[in-house]
Amino acid sequence: MENISYTNISGLFARTRCVPVVVLKTLEDTLPTLKALCDYGIPTAEITFRTACAADAIRLGREQLPDMLIGAGTVINAAQARAAIEAGAQFIVSPGIGADIAEVCREADIPYIPGCVTPAEIMQALSLGITTVKFFPANVYGGMDAIKALSAPFPQVRFVPTGGVDSGNLDEFLACDKIAAVGGSFFVKLALQKSGK
Amino acid sequence: MENISYTNISGLFARTRCVPVVVLKTLEDTLPTLKALCDYGIPTAEITFRTACAADAIRLGREQLPDMLIGAGTVINAAQARAAIEAGAQFIVSPGIGADIAEVCREADIPYIPGCVTPAEIMQALSLGITTVKFFPANVYGGMDAIKALSAPFPQVRFVPTGGVDSGNLDEFLACDKIAAVGGSFFVKLALQKSGK
Amino acid sequence: MENISYTNISGLFARTRCVPVVVLKTLEDTLPTLKALCDYGIPTAEITFRTACAADAIRLGREQLPDMLIGAGTVINAAQARAAIEAGAQFIVSPGIGADIAEVCREADIPYIPGCVTPAEIMQALSLGITTVKFFPANVYGGMDAIKALSAPFPQVRFVPTGGVDSGNLDEFLACDKIAAVGGSFFVKLALQKSGK
Repeated sequence: MENISYTNISGLFARTRCVPVVVLKTLEDTLPTLKALCDYGIPTAEITFRTACAADAIRLGREQLPDMLIGAGTVINAAQARAAIEAGAQFIVSPGIGADIAEVCREADIPYIPGCVTPAEIMQALSLGITTVKFFPANVYGGMDAIKALSAPFPQVRFVPTGGVDSGNLDEFLACDKIAAVGGSFFVKLALQKSGK
Repeated sequence: MENISYTNISGLFARTRCVPVVVLKTLEDTLPTLKALCDYGIPTAEITFRTACAADAIRLGREQLPDMLIGAGTVINAAQARAAIEAGAQFIVSPGIGADIAEVCREADIPYIPGCVTPAEIMQALSLGITTVKFFPANVYGGMDAIKALSAPFPQVRFVPTGGVDSGNLDEFLACDKIAAVGGSFFVKLALQKSGK
Repeated sequence: MENISYTNISGLFARTRCVPVVVLKTLEDTLPTLKALCDYGIPTAEITFRTACAADAIRLGREQLPDMLIGAGTVINAAQARAAIEAGAQFIVSPGIGADIAEVCREADIPYIPGCVTPAEIMQALSLGITTVKFFPANVYGGMDAIKALSAPFPQVRFVPTGGVDSGNLDEFLACDKIAAVGGSFFVKLALQKSGK
């Protein structure tokens, strides 16, 4: 895929600015869940390392659904980042920011979207060459008000709010030009409901 | 005491899930305050390094009340951690997280409970082998809503909310299985009131 | 100016506890804006590195208005800190905290006011020998309630709340002895309004 590298992540959100957070309890859930997302019009998945089958699910998804954009979420250390990339993850997302994870992503030249909720954490991201950050839990740490306030000293930064974003306020978030994309597990729920599963 | 080490702190909260934050203005206040806590049914004290007599108070408490669990709080650097441990502190609590303090506690093999309020800070704790963190000031940084939101990507973490917890909402906090214990100076106030001091 | 060094910043707020955040779109705006602040009774300016002319504006202001106290704001890396100091900046302000920026300021022996909103970030400031920190965005991260809560374990720290402070609540902030000064762009707006520009 074009325009996806450590320093250029514009390709990540070219098709959709929605990042479904996918928590898979068993490997068997992988393809039905990913296909439901595609049918719903969101061919993107952040498969979380909260469950043991995450790496296998990423590998399976990448093999069977090559047109999807599949990354790894809830990556909390360098070992997980390496496992995710080896399985074929096209991007890495963390709840917070980890310099060691950034290093692994830089070497593999794939995007890293770290979670940053304070100005100091955003400065750390910038020092690592990262300008798009997750903002989680968005509702707890001030939501749109926080993102607008942080955008004053950090005009170069784009945010991916996650947590507390849902169908009701999605449009409000996406209307803001400081929002690169919106993350959430609610996309998965909606997609599965529509697919009748 | 069993089950208290850097990597296993389960023994800390086996008798009570309450952590009284004890601020002692003079050394003479030590034993009356600690005895009042024991009489109140909470044989635990986090004696804060906010006052000059902290290390002496920990030493005195440990000598005179060997059945109490006595740790040091408001530890903000490695030198204080060393002084606290030398005085007999059985655990160390910080308002934030300090890697140098964690190192001192790991060497002494006693529990370190660092304050973490953002996902990045929790990731730092995990990288140091720590899974129980203080959440302070709890009321300012989102209270139970924040703890529930943070528990999604960090199911392995237990929290010790402090600040804004009081008699009125204590039970609500303790009812949540993500809460290891609750900290606060209000325990001390209640214990001293009951003791008539 | 006396009493302004890396370890002693008392001189910074001796004349006024207001820190106007000055965003200059063009170099030509520099002197009219700074003179308006002086006429308004606030001979202090934090010229932000959000715009390309920041270093030149600092140099011009220092040459033409030697009685003003002129620093640099929104400094997010060591290179900007060096450029600001070379241009004559008398103090450096960051939205978050950067250890590399602190090092540059320590070598130049000028005050560094880093942004800190969590206990861990305040502990990092203390470890760098810094006891006055910016609290930004103040309204998003709990305002006065947060500052009061953070002052319990950190009695030695003074705060410079910025963001969400305005004419309406300025006096409330300044009344608190934990507040070293108040920052904001609203001072500039008020000064320019009064000057008729």
